[in-house]
Amino acid sequence: MDELPGAFGTSASLALRLGQTVFSSASLFFMCLDVEFYSYTAFCYLVTVMGLVIPWSVTLLAVDAYSVFVKWLPIQRRLILIILSGDMVLSYLSLAAACSTASVADIFLDAGGYDCPPKLCGRYQLSAAMAFLSWFLSSASCLFNLWLFPSL
Amino acid sequence: MDELPGAFGTSASLALRLGQTVFSSASLFFMCLDVEFYSYTAFCYLVTVMGLVIPWSVTLLAVDAYSVFVKWLPIQRRLILIILSGDMVLSYLSLAAACSTASVADIFLDAGGYDCPPKLCGRYQLSAAMAFLSWFLSSASCLFNLWLFPSL
Repeated sequence: MDELPGAFGTSASLALRLGQTVFSSASLFFMCLDVEFYSYTAFCYLVTVMGLVIPWSVTLLAVDAYSVFVKWLPIQRRLILIILSGDMVLSYLSLAAACSTASVADIFLDAGGYDCPPKLCGRYQLSAAMAFLSWFLSSASCLFNLWLFPSL
Repeated sequence: MDELPGAFGTSASLALRLGQTVFSSASLFFMCLDVEFYSYTAFCYLVTVMGLVIPWSVTLLAVDAYSVFVKWLPIQRRLILIILSGDMVLSYLSLAAACSTASVADIFLDAGGYDCPPKLCGRYQLSAAMAFLSWFLSSASCLFNLWLFPSL
Protein backbone atom coordinates (compact mmCIF):
# COMPACT_ATOMS: atom_id res chain seq x y z
CA MET A 1 0.00 0.00 0.00
CA ASP A 2 1.25 3.50 -0.76
CA GLU A 3 2.02 5.69 2.19
CA LEU A 4 -0.29 8.69 2.30
CA PRO A 5 1.44 11.80 3.69
CA GLY A 6 -0.41 13.03 6.76
CA ALA A 7 -2.09 9.72 7.56
CA PHE A 8 -1.25 7.70 10.65
CA GLY A 9 2.38 6.73 11.11
CA THR A 10 4.01 9.22 8.70
CA SER A 11 6.27 12.13 9.53
CA ALA A 12 3.66 14.64 8.28
CA SER A 13 1.25 13.17 10.80
CA LEU A 14 3.90 13.55 13.49
CA ALA A 15 4.22 17.25 12.60
CA LEU A 16 0.42 17.72 12.72
CA ARG A 17 0.21 16.05 16.14
CA LEU A 18 3.06 18.18 17.43
CA GLY A 19 1.24 21.32 16.27
CA GLN A 20 -1.99 20.19 17.93
CA THR A 21 -0.22 19.55 21.21
CA VAL A 22 1.52 22.92 21.18
CA PHE A 23 -1.53 24.97 20.20
CA SER A 24 -3.98 23.25 22.53
CA SER A 25 -1.57 23.60 25.46
CA ALA A 26 -1.08 27.28 24.62
CA SER A 27 -4.84 27.78 24.50
CA LEU A 28 -5.29 26.16 27.91
CA PHE A 29 -2.37 28.14 29.30
CA PHE A 30 -3.71 31.53 28.20
CA MET A 31 -7.16 30.70 29.54
CA CYS A 32 -5.96 29.40 32.91
CA LEU A 33 -3.37 32.08 33.68
CA ASP A 34 -5.88 33.51 36.12
CA VAL A 35 -8.88 31.72 37.59
CA GLU A 36 -11.53 34.17 36.33
CA PHE A 37 -12.78 31.77 33.68
CA TYR A 38 -15.01 29.89 36.15
CA SER A 39 -17.75 32.50 35.81
CA TYR A 40 -18.52 31.81 32.14
CA THR A 41 -19.85 28.65 30.55
CA ALA A 42 -18.00 29.22 27.29
CA PHE A 43 -14.61 29.53 29.01
CA CYS A 44 -15.21 26.45 31.18
CA TYR A 45 -16.18 24.58 28.02
CA LEU A 46 -12.91 25.58 26.34
CA VAL A 47 -10.93 24.36 29.34
CA THR A 48 -12.82 21.04 29.34
CA VAL A 49 -12.31 20.48 25.62
CA MET A 50 -8.62 21.36 25.77
CA GLY A 51 -8.31 18.97 28.70
CA LEU A 52 -9.52 16.24 26.33
CA VAL A 53 -7.54 17.33 23.27
CA ILE A 54 -4.16 17.53 25.01
CA PRO A 55 -3.92 13.88 26.22
CA TRP A 56 -5.29 12.64 22.88
CA SER A 57 -2.69 14.61 20.89
CA VAL A 58 0.14 13.64 23.20
CA THR A 59 -0.74 9.93 22.95
CA LEU A 60 -0.89 10.01 19.17
CA LEU A 61 2.27 12.10 19.04
CA ALA A 62 4.05 9.36 20.99
CA VAL A 63 2.65 6.61 18.76
CA ASP A 64 3.59 8.49 15.58
CA ALA A 65 7.07 9.22 16.90
CA TYR A 66 7.54 5.52 17.70
CA SER A 67 6.34 4.56 14.24
CA VAL A 68 8.59 7.10 12.47
CA PHE A 69 11.80 6.83 14.48
CA VAL A 70 11.85 3.37 16.05
CA LYS A 71 9.83 0.75 14.26
CA TRP A 72 7.17 1.05 11.58
CA LEU A 73 3.78 0.02 12.95
CA PRO A 74 1.40 -1.86 10.64
CA ILE A 75 -1.76 0.07 9.78
CA GLN A 76 -4.87 -1.76 10.93
CA ARG A 77 -8.38 -0.90 9.86
CA ARG A 78 -9.75 -0.94 13.42
CA LEU A 79 -6.98 1.31 14.73
CA ILE A 80 -7.55 3.88 11.99
CA LEU A 81 -11.29 3.81 12.69
CA ILE A 82 -10.70 4.61 16.38
CA ILE A 83 -8.23 7.41 15.57
CA LEU A 84 -10.59 8.77 12.93
CA SER A 85 -13.60 8.88 15.26
CA GLY A 86 -11.60 10.50 18.05
CA ASP A 87 -10.14 13.12 15.73
CA MET A 88 -13.51 13.95 14.25
CA VAL A 89 -15.28 14.36 17.60
CA LEU A 90 -12.42 16.37 19.08
CA SER A 91 -12.06 18.61 16.04
CA TYR A 92 -15.78 19.50 16.15
CA LEU A 93 -15.57 20.11 19.89
CA SER A 94 -12.54 22.35 19.58
CA LEU A 95 -14.09 24.38 16.76
CA ALA A 96 -17.19 24.86 18.94
CA ALA A 97 -15.07 25.87 21.95
CA ALA A 98 -12.97 28.29 19.90
CA CYS A 99 -16.04 30.00 18.42
CA SER A 100 -17.79 30.30 21.77
CA THR A 101 -14.74 31.76 23.45
CA ALA A 102 -14.09 34.17 20.59
CA SER A 103 -17.66 35.46 20.54
CA VAL A 104 -17.85 35.88 24.33
CA ALA A 105 -14.50 37.73 24.39
CA ASP A 106 -15.80 39.90 21.57
CA ILE A 107 -18.99 40.75 23.51
CA PHE A 108 -16.85 41.80 26.49
CA LEU A 109 -14.71 44.05 24.34
CA ASP A 110 -17.79 45.58 22.69
CA ALA A 111 -19.39 46.24 26.04
CA GLY A 112 -16.34 48.37 26.83
CA GLY A 113 -14.85 47.03 29.99
CA TYR A 114 -18.05 45.39 31.17
CA ASP A 115 -16.43 42.84 33.43
CA CYS A 116 -12.95 42.62 31.94
CA PRO A 117 -9.98 44.92 31.48
CA PRO A 118 -8.54 44.98 27.91
CA LYS A 119 -5.48 42.98 28.93
CA LEU A 120 -7.58 40.08 30.19
CA CYS A 121 -9.84 40.15 27.13
CA GLY A 122 -6.80 40.12 24.87
CA ARG A 123 -5.66 36.95 26.57
CA TYR A 124 -9.06 35.32 26.05
CA GLN A 125 -8.88 36.20 22.37
CA LEU A 126 -5.40 34.76 22.13
CA SER A 127 -6.67 31.58 23.75
CA ALA A 128 -9.49 31.38 21.18
CA ALA A 129 -7.01 31.91 18.34
CA MET A 130 -4.84 29.04 19.61
CA ALA A 131 -7.92 26.84 19.85
CA PHE A 132 -8.74 27.68 16.21
CA LEU A 133 -5.24 26.65 15.11
CA SER A 134 -5.55 23.44 17.09
CA TRP A 135 -8.91 22.74 15.41
CA PHE A 136 -7.41 23.35 11.98
CA LEU A 137 -4.59 20.84 12.47
CA SER A 138 -6.88 18.31 14.09
CA SER A 139 -9.32 18.54 11.23
CA ALA A 140 -6.45 18.10 8.74
CA SER A 141 -5.38 14.89 10.52
CA CYS A 142 -8.94 13.68 10.44
CA LEU A 143 -9.29 14.31 6.70
CA PHE A 144 -6.01 12.55 5.84
CA ASN A 145 -7.04 9.49 7.86
CA LEU A 146 -10.53 9.54 6.36
CA TRP A 147 -8.94 9.63 2.90
CA LEU A 148 -6.81 6.60 3.76
CA PHE A 149 -9.62 4.61 5.37
CA PRO A 150 -11.59 3.28 2.36
CA SER A 151 -8.41 1.81 0.86
CA LEU A 152 -7.81 -0.42 3.90
CA MET B 1 -21.03 1.11 -9.03
CA ASP B 2 -23.12 0.51 -5.91
CA GLU B 3 -25.37 3.32 -4.86
CA LEU B 4 -24.35 4.64 -1.45
CA PRO B 5 -27.34 5.79 0.64
CA GLY B 6 -26.94 9.46 1.54
CA ALA B 7 -24.52 10.27 -1.28
CA PHE B 8 -25.44 12.59 -4.15
CA GLY B 9 -28.53 11.64 -6.15
CA THR B 10 -30.17 9.23 -3.69
CA SER B 11 -33.42 9.65 -1.80
CA ALA B 12 -31.57 9.74 1.55
CA SER B 13 -29.59 12.68 0.23
CA LEU B 14 -32.85 14.34 -0.80
CA ALA B 15 -34.13 13.96 2.78
CA LEU B 16 -30.91 15.40 4.22
CA ARG B 17 -31.09 18.42 1.89
CA LEU B 18 -34.73 18.98 2.78
CA GLY B 19 -33.83 18.97 6.48
CA GLN B 20 -30.98 21.42 5.90
CA THR B 21 -33.26 23.80 4.03
CA VAL B 22 -35.97 23.67 6.70
CA PHE B 23 -33.63 24.08 9.69
CA SER B 24 -31.49 26.81 8.19
CA SER B 25 -34.58 28.79 7.14
CA ALA B 26 -36.03 28.37 10.64
CA SER B 27 -32.78 29.59 12.16
CA LEU B 28 -32.75 32.68 9.94
CA PHE B 29 -36.44 33.30 10.65
CA PHE B 30 -36.07 33.20 14.45
CA MET B 31 -33.05 35.48 14.29
CA CYS B 32 -34.60 38.04 11.93
CA LEU B 33 -38.04 38.30 13.53
CA ASP B 34 -36.92 41.59 14.98
CA VAL B 35 -34.00 43.73 13.77
CA GLU B 36 -32.09 43.78 17.06
CA PHE B 37 -29.44 41.39 15.81
CA TYR B 38 -27.48 44.16 14.08
CA SER B 39 -25.80 45.13 17.33
CA TYR B 40 -23.87 41.89 17.82
CA THR B 41 -21.17 40.39 15.62
CA ALA B 42 -22.17 36.81 16.44
CA PHE B 43 -25.78 37.32 15.37
CA CYS B 44 -24.79 39.11 12.15
CA TYR B 45 -22.44 36.22 11.42
CA LEU B 46 -25.26 33.70 11.88
CA VAL B 47 -27.45 35.66 9.48
CA THR B 48 -24.64 35.81 6.89
CA VAL B 49 -23.89 32.10 7.14
CA MET B 50 -27.55 31.12 6.90
CA GLY B 51 -27.82 33.41 3.88
CA LEU B 52 -25.17 31.21 2.25
CA VAL B 53 -26.48 27.85 3.48
CA ILE B 54 -30.07 28.36 2.30
CA PRO B 55 -29.37 28.89 -1.45
CA TRP B 56 -26.81 26.05 -1.41
CA SER B 57 -29.27 23.61 0.19
CA VAL B 58 -32.13 24.67 -2.06
CA THR B 59 -30.01 24.20 -5.20
CA LEU B 60 -28.87 20.73 -4.16
CA LEU B 61 -32.39 19.86 -3.06
CA ALA B 62 -33.60 20.67 -6.57
CA VAL B 63 -30.80 18.66 -8.21
CA ASP B 64 -31.42 15.66 -5.94
CA ALA B 65 -35.17 15.83 -6.54
CA TYR B 66 -34.54 15.89 -10.29
CA SER B 67 -32.19 12.93 -10.00
CA VAL B 68 -34.60 10.89 -7.84
CA PHE B 69 -37.94 11.64 -9.47
CA VAL B 70 -37.24 12.61 -13.08
CA LYS B 71 -34.06 11.24 -14.54
CA TRP B 72 -31.04 9.65 -12.87
CA LEU B 73 -28.01 11.92 -13.22
CA PRO B 74 -24.61 10.29 -13.75
CA ILE B 75 -22.17 10.87 -10.88
CA GLN B 76 -19.06 12.71 -12.03
CA ARG B 77 -15.90 13.02 -10.01
CA ARG B 78 -15.64 16.77 -10.53
CA LEU B 79 -19.24 17.40 -9.52
CA ILE B 80 -18.85 15.42 -6.29
CA LEU B 81 -15.65 17.32 -5.52
CA ILE B 82 -17.47 20.66 -5.83
CA ILE B 83 -20.42 19.49 -3.70
CA LEU B 84 -18.03 18.02 -1.14
CA SER B 85 -15.99 21.22 -0.78
CA GLY B 86 -19.10 23.36 -0.51
CA ASP B 87 -20.66 21.09 2.10
CA MET B 88 -17.50 20.97 4.17
CA VAL B 89 -16.97 24.74 4.19
CA LEU B 90 -20.63 25.46 4.94
CA SER B 91 -20.88 22.83 7.67
CA TYR B 92 -17.85 24.30 9.47
CA LEU B 93 -19.26 27.81 9.07
CA SER B 94 -22.66 26.83 10.41
CA LEU B 95 -21.18 25.03 13.42
CA ALA B 96 -19.15 28.15 14.18
CA ALA B 97 -22.21 30.38 13.80
CA ALA B 98 -24.36 28.13 15.99
CA CYS B 99 -21.76 28.04 18.78
CA SER B 100 -21.20 31.78 18.71
CA THR B 101 -24.91 32.52 18.85
CA ALA B 102 -25.52 30.01 21.61
CA SER B 103 -22.72 31.35 23.79
CA VAL B 104 -23.71 34.98 23.30
CA ALA B 105 -27.39 34.20 24.09
CA ASP B 106 -26.18 32.32 27.17
CA ILE B 107 -24.12 35.31 28.36
CA PHE B 108 -27.20 37.52 28.03
CA LEU B 109 -29.30 35.11 30.08
CA ASP B 110 -26.58 34.83 32.74
CA ALA B 111 -26.25 38.58 32.98
CA GLY B 112 -29.93 38.62 33.97
CA GLY B 113 -31.69 40.85 31.51
CA TYR B 114 -28.56 42.77 30.58
CA ASP B 115 -29.78 43.98 27.22
CA CYS B 116 -32.46 41.41 26.40
CA PRO B 117 -35.80 40.30 27.83
CA PRO B 118 -36.14 36.50 28.35
CA LYS B 119 -38.52 36.12 25.42
CA LEU B 120 -35.99 37.58 22.99
CA CYS B 121 -33.15 35.50 24.43
CA GLY B 122 -35.26 32.35 24.09
CA ARG B 123 -35.67 33.12 20.43
CA TYR B 124 -31.93 33.54 19.97
CA GLN B 125 -31.37 30.18 21.63
CA LEU B 126 -33.96 28.57 19.39
CA SER B 127 -32.18 30.05 16.40
CA ALA B 128 -28.88 28.59 17.61
CA ALA B 129 -30.53 25.18 18.10
CA MET B 130 -31.85 25.23 14.52
CA ALA B 131 -28.40 26.18 13.26
CA PHE B 132 -26.95 23.18 15.16
CA LEU B 133 -29.45 20.83 13.50
CA SER B 134 -28.64 22.32 10.12
CA TRP B 135 -24.92 21.79 10.80
CA PHE B 136 -25.54 18.17 11.80
CA LEU B 137 -27.36 17.31 8.56
CA SER B 138 -24.89 19.22 6.45
CA SER B 139 -21.99 17.41 8.03
CA ALA B 140 -23.75 14.07 7.43
CA SER B 141 -24.12 14.90 3.72
CA CYS B 142 -20.47 15.85 3.59
CA LEU B 143 -19.36 12.58 5.19
CA PHE B 144 -21.46 10.42 2.86
CA ASN B 145 -20.06 12.20 -0.20
CA LEU B 146 -16.54 11.98 1.18
CA TRP B 147 -17.03 8.24 1.66
CA LEU B 148 -18.16 7.90 -1.95
CA PHE B 149 -15.40 10.06 -3.41
CA PRO B 150 -12.35 7.73 -3.38
CA SER B 151 -14.31 5.05 -5.26
CA LEU B 152 -14.95 7.35 -8.25
